[in-house]
Amino acid sequence: MQHLLERVDTAALRARRLRLMRAAGGRAVLFAGAAPPRNYPANTYPFRASSHFLYVVGVPIERAAVLLEGERFTLYLPDAPADDALWHGPPIPRGLLAERLDCEVRSLDELPAALQRGEVATVPALDAETRALQSRWLGRPVELGRIDRVDERFVDALIDARLRHDEAAVAQLRLAVEATAAAHRAGREAARVGAREWEVRAAMEAELLARHCTTAYPPIVTVHGDVLHERHHHRVLRETDLLLADVGAETAGGWAADVTRTWPVGGRFSPTQRDFYALVLAANEAAIAAVRPGVRFRDVHLVASRVLAAGLVELGVLRGDPDELVADGVHALLFPHGVGHLLGLDVHDMEDLGDRAGYAPGRTRSTQFGLCYLRLDRDLEPGMCVTIEPGLYRVEAILHDPRLEPLARDRLDRDRLARFADVRGIRIEDDVLVTAHGAEVLSAAIPKAPEAVQR
Amino acid sequence: MQHLLERVDTAALRARRLRLMRAAGGRAVLFAGAAPPRNYPANTYPFRASSHFLYVVGVPIERAAVLLEGERFTLYLPDAPADDALWHGPPIPRGLLAERLDCEVRSLDELPAALQRGEVATVPALDAETRALQSRWLGRPVELGRIDRVDERFVDALIDARLRHDEAAVAQLRLAVEATAAAHRAGREAARVGAREWEVRAAMEAELLARHCTTAYPPIVTVHGDVLHERHHHRVLRETDLLLADVGAETAGGWAADVTRTWPVGGRFSPTQRDFYALVLAANEAAIAAVRPGVRFRDVHLVASRVLAAGLVELGVLRGDPDELVADGVHALLFPHGVGHLLGLDVHDMEDLGDRAGYAPGRTRSTQFGLCYLRLDRDLEPGMCVTIEPGLYRVEAILHDPRLEPLARDRLDRDRLARFADVRGIRIEDDVLVTAHGAEVLSAAIPKAPEAVQR
Repeated sequence: MQHLLERVDTAALRARRLRLMRAAGGRAVLFAGAAPPRNYPANTYPFRASSHFLYVVGVPIERAAVLLEGERFTLYLPDAPADDALWHGPPIPRGLLAERLDCEVRSLDELPAALQRGEVATVPALDAETRALQSRWLGRPVELGRIDRVDERFVDALIDARLRHDEAAVAQLRLAVEATAAAHRAGREAARVGAREWEVRAAMEAELLARHCTTAYPPIVTVHGDVLHERHHHRVLRETDLLLADVGAETAGGWAADVTRTWPVGGRFSPTQRDFYALVLAANEAAIAAVRPGVRFRDVHLVASRVLAAGLVELGVLRGDPDELVADGVHALLFPHGVGHLLGLDVHDMEDLGDRAGYAPGRTRSTQFGLCYLRLDRDLEPGMCVTIEPGLYRVEAILHDPRLEPLARDRLDRDRLARFADVRGIRIEDDVLVTAHGAEVLSAAIPKAPEAVQR
Repeated sequence: MQHLLERVDTAALRARRLRLMRAAGGRAVLFAGAAPPRNYPANTYPFRASSHFLYVVGVPIERAAVLLEGERFTLYLPDAPADDALWHGPPIPRGLLAERLDCEVRSLDELPAALQRGEVATVPALDAETRALQSRWLGRPVELGRIDRVDERFVDALIDARLRHDEAAVAQLRLAVEATAAAHRAGREAARVGAREWEVRAAMEAELLARHCTTAYPPIVTVHGDVLHERHHHRVLRETDLLLADVGAETAGGWAADVTRTWPVGGRFSPTQRDFYALVLAANEAAIAAVRPGVRFRDVHLVASRVLAAGLVELGVLRGDPDELVADGVHALLFPHGVGHLLGLDVHDMEDLGDRAGYAPGRTRSTQFGLCYLRLDRDLEPGMCVTIEPGLYRVEAILHDPRLEPLARDRLDRDRLARFADVRGIRIEDDVLVTAHGAEVLSAAIPKAPEAVQR
């Protein structure tokens, strides 16, 4: 922890706090949270501090809390058990904390009294133990997934602040993408015919760990790209398989990358794989080209959808006018998810606040199949970071879902689609930072199988 | 999951259940539990099923429960959300589950009604969400760390069953140790002067992941062995450092290994490092030699303590009669923890039940410094698996603790100890299976720096 603290950007954290509390007014408390137990209380999962806490504190300090009152900033630390130094080493010197975080440091025992001096806003902690503390100390029920009326102004100010990344945040995002690039390089090397998916995953994760990062989300490394969140990695890689690797780093400070690449295990696409891959790549490029300030993210989703629909018509898999197909959501039979989401301290940034972060006020999720999975519908602004991740999948559960048959009707040519049996799932995902006049692809250095488009 | 299910030892699981319920009588329900959220509800930690559930089911099935009634065994599965197949692939066929687990399979929705047909024992789940369900469905508060009177007989039968490993369990333990051996080999190779601790950790974890294992506990890979549970790995390895690596695999079925090795980064011990290392190795060997059926584990701890105390007297670090030093706990100033613990589905097996598993009825923890950390005090029986892990540490927090000064008095030669400044912490830990007439060191193939003892 001390080595992280020594590298913390004190000025950036101070600026975040001031901006946040100027917008929020009043007082607010944020809790770091506690590591949940795995198989017994002392054997916990690795501690991951709340992203909101990390946003203003910069370093993960288990069971700590911060009280924000105008320009005043107080860090409350749990008192360590008497024998803590034996098991976990000497505590971080409070003087160093006070200096590097530019704050007052007090004992957590003093927090309940401080909280009783008037209304204090908060954000529900992820772990039940900390939420129980929040409820008790704030004297009101604090529940995950519910934003209390007294918390609304603070939560909205927090969302507003976290939507647009400052320079310190962008530096962290670049660090995460850099580690991710190394992981993807290692993945390409490890993905040999006859290897198991979990060997590829191991090679990728090792690169993250070796850079003091962890995984920002459960890695997906699979020859079954048609299972969107596949968490099993037991399959043996075959010459004719496509391997889909959706692996992103999280820096020690908590910032995420989220990158997917799909490539042929044997080194060469089959003609059908190449057709679908080229289409996904075209959608990825078109959507990235659409990213700039002022653009509504749903329209970026529709740009990708339009490219995919038009291409699928050209390949004879869909029938009809591409615009109509997109309007009716027919393309979603093969591209069932959203084109991207916010990226920041969370891989789906601020998703703990539901759609309040991802959807602009007044906008709500569509009920249409496919579009209902779009996690972001805001007008883009400089400093926002989004993923762009179109894909094409042959998902049996979709293709055989009787509820979706009215969508398919005569517009999906199942015989034609059957020719693409060697494509299970392809996704190409990049991390894109909205700049003053356009966009920067943070993950541009991670190769996208350029051989695919050279016929 | 399906690939695990296909390899499950149906007969062994059936035998466990029958033995367990014959001893427990009545009815019992065990819950697999749910993966806790990490930074937002959909981004969870990797799911780890309850060890008690794994003991009778063999495979991790999130949110499932099993009802045990005499010879009857029913698995209750949560109904998947409508779009689950899109995100997570097709569900495991219920017929396969029923066949491989030799049980009836029902919907979790039917469990509450089944639980109301009379008294049912249980074990508290680790995650708060599942515990809330348990409390509601059983109509009584179920709390972590508290064993209800109605659960006692079942819990004791479960402990009794899990204390002695059957052949299927031993096969899993061997698998865990095998992966651990590969990790330690990789660690030795990666531990070059100038590397960071986290690079060594990465190389070790990659070997586990590449074998479809994970870490059974947070790995300790540190040149500061004096921090017993050091979780930071940022330091650069220097020529003169000792590197302590406490890393153990957990198999996909949940079985753990727990192995520590300590070696000189530069390849050669200094004379002081060699002295301390040889002493720890002698304690490790003496304690292992003491392991056999009928021996009280506290006596194994005392054997190791005696070797360390005598050696420290010989080196002039302690003064006095070794037996007296051990009786007074003076050796604990340099060997402050217990010599080992139970190993099985948990790395500290059944520690979720407190000392009920580790301590034989009528025995309780000592209040003496050092001995109070001993996690196991039972008479050993064939089939038990324990760790043997003596160590020597120069912990500043102990050496400067005024409460421990009466222990040190004139019996600790601080000037002499200061000569061993290049030893921070050394631990040598093996996994030892109690056999019919002695013991088998499962981790024997993992080298223990034999150069240390050749002077």
